[in-house]
Amino acid sequence: MTAWSERELIRKIRLECNGRSDGLIKGIGDDCCEVTAHGSWLISTDTLVDSVHFDRSWHPPRLLGRKSVAVNLSDIAAMGGRPRFVLLSLCLPEELEAEWINLWLAGALEILQDYDCLLIGGDTVLGRELVLTVTVLGEPVGKGAVYRTGAGGGDSVWVSGPLGSAGGGLELFAAEKEQPGLLDLARWQPLLDAHLNPLPCISLGMELAESGLVTAMQDISDGIATDLAHICQASGTGALIQAEQLPFLPELSSAAGVLGLRVEDLILRSGEDYQLVFTVRMGSEKELIRLMEEKEREVFRIGEIRTGRGLFLQTESGEEEISFQGYEH
Amino acid sequence: MTAWSERELIRKIRLECNGRSDGLIKGIGDDCCEVTAHGSWLISTDTLVDSVHFDRSWHPPRLLGRKSVAVNLSDIAAMGGRPRFVLLSLCLPEELEAEWINLWLAGALEILQDYDCLLIGGDTVLGRELVLTVTVLGEPVGKGAVYRTGAGGGDSVWVSGPLGSAGGGLELFAAEKEQPGLLDLARWQPLLDAHLNPLPCISLGMELAESGLVTAMQDISDGIATDLAHICQASGTGALIQAEQLPFLPELSSAAGVLGLRVEDLILRSGEDYQLVFTVRMGSEKELIRLMEEKEREVFRIGEIRTGRGLFLQTESGEEEISFQGYEH
Repeated sequence: MTAWSERELIRKIRLECNGRSDGLIKGIGDDCCEVTAHGSWLISTDTLVDSVHFDRSWHPPRLLGRKSVAVNLSDIAAMGGRPRFVLLSLCLPEELEAEWINLWLAGALEILQDYDCLLIGGDTVLGRELVLTVTVLGEPVGKGAVYRTGAGGGDSVWVSGPLGSAGGGLELFAAEKEQPGLLDLARWQPLLDAHLNPLPCISLGMELAESGLVTAMQDISDGIATDLAHICQASGTGALIQAEQLPFLPELSSAAGVLGLRVEDLILRSGEDYQLVFTVRMGSEKELIRLMEEKEREVFRIGEIRTGRGLFLQTESGEEEISFQGYEH
Repeated sequence: MTAWSERELIRKIRLECNGRSDGLIKGIGDDCCEVTAHGSWLISTDTLVDSVHFDRSWHPPRLLGRKSVAVNLSDIAAMGGRPRFVLLSLCLPEELEAEWINLWLAGALEILQDYDCLLIGGDTVLGRELVLTVTVLGEPVGKGAVYRTGAGGGDSVWVSGPLGSAGGGLELFAAEKEQPGLLDLARWQPLLDAHLNPLPCISLGMELAESGLVTAMQDISDGIATDLAHICQASGTGALIQAEQLPFLPELSSAAGVLGLRVEDLILRSGEDYQLVFTVRMGSEKELIRLMEEKEREVFRIGEIRTGRGLFLQTESGEEEISFQGYEH
């Protein structure tokens, strides 16, 4: 449990940064790294702060390393792009154990390898607080990047997978921390996994971008109530989604019951699922369904874009506005 | 002195991010920003931590905003590139005054405008500590980027301006903080300015890259003893520099005297001058001198690259190895 050494960490990172890749001209070891692209670059940067965005008491460092990168890869997925290169800026407290940072780095490198990305540079500094900033560069594929702005009235709204899972997992860990041993967490493993180790929808994002059927797309980081509202706002439209069509894991109901939470709150308003929400051009639904069958993917139609403003939820008792009611980071 | 509001800050940044620029396809407001390049991109990221990399007790926020960006622009200058786009990742404590962050942002935007760069995105999060991460994208000019690796035996070594000024300024502020009122700081204004508001050598870097005369280049962030040693290490060479040829401001001698420091320590080993150190191909010195006269620039020849390893300093009493004796961030 010795504390980390900056020299040792930089040596390790340099060793890992010596990969070769089409388009990488200069990796780590100069004032800048240098990359070429065929067309444009998609760029996103996200900062995670200890005790704000993650809790080290329950988050294993290797999985946190994966997640720190995953949330950025998810931004590339949301544009339908292919992630290529990553820069890490690590602000690390002096007393951090070398073992922790080694495992974190191993997780980060593992997910980069999973998605055929390369670590090309970054910065390591000493601080009082653990702050992890990841910057990712990706390339658009097919007909180009998919923005939030293209949704039109009559388009259908879809999500790539169950909602609320990560939020449920987070609440379970928080409850366990509050009263250790009270819950048998293993019952809800899929929710715990969704929180600990979210998987960015890279392949699906590229397939959708290449299909030309999708008019707007975004990843679900703050809950569908907020993230679909972003699409509506950017596109100048509204949307109506059907409560009964929102997909969620069976484990979420029992977890919500035990936690004393409402399932629909977790589904609509909890963040970090990193599923995609996307809109399909009016009249192209059948084509999308055919494509998804061909790719053996399950996606879920949850509602429609409409003229006017505001994101509404259709329940048995009528329509209810839910715009921007998601989790605020 | 109200604390900052994340909503208000993001609103401000979005307003400032609506600039247009050749190559900017998508600015802030989507999952990623999107840029196109003619050729390759140079990318650098740097993290500054409160009380580690700067001291808010003496650093005015507007100048710190300038400097936070300047240190990154300097990395682009060191490759001979033209900076184009910047992303800011700000980790801000809840209690930070809105006024401070507004002035910081104004300074950052001001220097971006000075160098014709655009803020295109980033991230804002809440943390216990102030951590500022800046990522800059630039384009190589002329015959392409200048790396650290190209120096060869017989090349001459040059610097773009006086050394040790920023280090002197830092020591003066630290002494004043220790014993307020003891020193008449205004006597050393150029040193204070060098510390508070360093200017990246963007134009010179591009001129040198375009000239084709320069074999290796780097900016001086950790002191010439370390930064020239990086060039030697990357190029597989050594170097000998002449103590009497190292340029410094006249104010540095008197400051060192008052502070009880050795002038040569400040010149060789203190960081953050953000001057350029570069090597000129053997036989091209006259051409370089002619170019610099034509551009009305003063640059300083300080020594030579040689075969063998290690960076040595020639003084009256002989040669002394000084490799990597600079400031460690």
